Amino acid sequence: MKILKKILGEIEELDQVKIKEAKQRLDTLTKPQGRLGKLEKIATKLAGITGDVFAPVDCKAHVVMAGDHGVVEEGVSAFAQEVTVAMIHNFLNQGAAINVLAQQVGAEVIVVDVGVAQEVGAEGLVVKKIKAGTDNFTQKAAMTEAEAIASIEVGIEVVEELVDRGVNLIGTGEMGIANTTSSSAIIAACTGLSVDDVVGYGSGIDDKGLARKQEVIKQGLKLNQPDSNNGIDILAKVGGLEIGAMAGMMLAAAAKKVPVIVDGVISGAAALIAKKLEPKVVGYLIPSHKSVEPAHIKTYEILGLEPMLDLDMRLGEGTGAVLAMNLVEAASRIIKEMATFEEIGL
Amino acid sequence: MKILKKILGEIEELDQVKIKEAKQRLDTLTKPQGRLGKLEKIATKLAGITGDVFAPVDCKAHVVMAGDHGVVEEGVSAFAQEVTVAMIHNFLNQGAAINVLAQQVGAEVIVVDVGVAQEVGAEGLVVKKIKAGTDNFTQKAAMTEAEAIASIEVGIEVVEELVDRGVNLIGTGEMGIANTTSSSAIIAACTGLSVDDVVGYGSGIDDKGLARKQEVIKQGLKLNQPDSNNGIDILAKVGGLEIGAMAGMMLAAAAKKVPVIVDGVISGAAALIAKKLEPKVVGYLIPSHKSVEPAHIKTYEILGLEPMLDLDMRLGEGTGAVLAMNLVEAASRIIKEMATFEEIGL
Repeated sequence: MKILKKILGEIEELDQVKIKEAKQRLDTLTKPQGRLGKLEKIATKLAGITGDVFAPVDCKAHVVMAGDHGVVEEGVSAFAQEVTVAMIHNFLNQGAAINVLAQQVGAEVIVVDVGVAQEVGAEGLVVKKIKAGTDNFTQKAAMTEAEAIASIEVGIEVVEELVDRGVNLIGTGEMGIANTTSSSAIIAACTGLSVDDVVGYGSGIDDKGLARKQEVIKQGLKLNQPDSNNGIDILAKVGGLEIGAMAGMMLAAAAKKVPVIVDGVISGAAALIAKKLEPKVVGYLIPSHKSVEPAHIKTYEILGLEPMLDLDMRLGEGTGAVLAMNLVEAASRIIKEMATFEEIGL
Repeated sequence: MKILKKILGEIEELDQVKIKEAKQRLDTLTKPQGRLGKLEKIATKLAGITGDVFAPVDCKAHVVMAGDHGVVEEGVSAFAQEVTVAMIHNFLNQGAAINVLAQQVGAEVIVVDVGVAQEVGAEGLVVKKIKAGTDNFTQKAAMTEAEAIASIEVGIEVVEELVDRGVNLIGTGEMGIANTTSSSAIIAACTGLSVDDVVGYGSGIDDKGLARKQEVIKQGLKLNQPDSNNGIDILAKVGGLEIGAMAGMMLAAAAKKVPVIVDGVISGAAALIAKKLEPKVVGYLIPSHKSVEPAHIKTYEILGLEPMLDLDMRLGEGTGAVLAMNLVEAASRIIKEMATFEEIGL
């Protein structure tokens, strides 16, 4: 709790002076004002986050937080829990979608075991396991409050190490079979939206599976009664260890004044938890893609984020976040490298 | 006309065998089937275009076709015609948005004078001027039929040279004050949509300017009566020289089996002209961003293209096309570099 408390105390408002300077600079560049749309908004946000109008985006890292979910035994996923381990090996062998996309954009991929059910034992895996998977939230709380805090602190530690190494753009990704179930429960608990409105098909269930998933989430919320004003309580009762770790990443990135990219629905659920703990964190969040999951658009609205990519993706791993890194870099280059009207004599 | 006729005769249907092979390959990769959404559709399309399931996207070029519009004298643009020349110098000095974005993605930028009103005289400019700007289409046809064909043939020549040099992904961009006016007229003429439905604010007019722009387009269409089934006639009567050249680029790329990216509303208008000349061309077109211009979404629908980027951009130059190059490359890498389920033992 000490680590988390310290980080929460370090998160400041965005630098409004630098935001204004960035807007002024953008309006001198050789284009009609505002016509680069969201790229200009991102450039402005980068200035507010970093306190530097010409914030470089040249050292990128993407973190895949891995954790398992006890609720998988309720039949809410098309995939078995073993897939979490197989995919971790795939990430470390550079074979997954996230590796291919990260290599293209020049981002390092870090894989962290924060709560995988099995012992993975793979070279290159960062092991910070809090618990061997959550408990089935239809039976009891997914984890204790202490475990929830510890999972958040894993994310904080990982980001602090990255920032110490000079990383200036961070992506949030995850792997965990059944984690759209947990995320949907979090989003319903955080927002007051109905379960039927937030639950989607995840990585591959059918209509029957969807009804089952809705039923399971309703059961979990009814049994656990998470306190909608308490992010730790929501995370502990219906959350996931990797989701806590992603929330911790966002909080630490905000404290360190480093932009952090929100991916799809699971990353969005983590952002809602982070916002419950410290609302100022949202200033440091960068949007990425519009996911197919129904809860996603609503989550982005609450966070004040506008998706930049519309790719009908529904994969996880943080694939949308890594694709958005190109756009964040583009925004950073635009404000720095474009000529001004004065320079071209207009 | 001989060059155009030859190219039209060379455009074939997409390779359905390779499309099927690409789909099969994508379904063996370590992700739930189809969950990379539009990236998978692009990977499939690349296979159909090139006849190669592992089509490389490693030699990119972006062409900015520049031309002026006589209709500018009707007060339809917030900018004076001199800006076309100033921006051409800016492109050649690497100072414009398109240069910054192209450098990021590793694309060469080629600037072609196909119909600038003034003599530009800049080092590095490819001069293929057909006419010193179009005529004011509220007074007479913008150009003759011969000039319209010649403008298309400029685009064909440019693409043939690029393909000879090994370019395997081509972006279409433009510069020409008042060219959203011409594009809106083309889109209305091609689609039968009402002028009020297709006209937008371009690069910077206000509400009064919008009403004026609508009036001018209605006047031009009424005077010239373009034949909605004849792409050359529409281009000649209300089009632009750079728009003709972009249509030519698309036709030549299709004939050479090279993917070509459609940008915003002006590039979309060119694509509609190309489609009138040879409907099979649409198979070779790659979508990019959703522009703010109202005609854009409708044009994409007619072309069967789904935008991948949603950035509220309205700049021109082909900025959306160049940003989309990252996504096309991502699609190409995904199908080639991801591990299969068999390879990871699942």
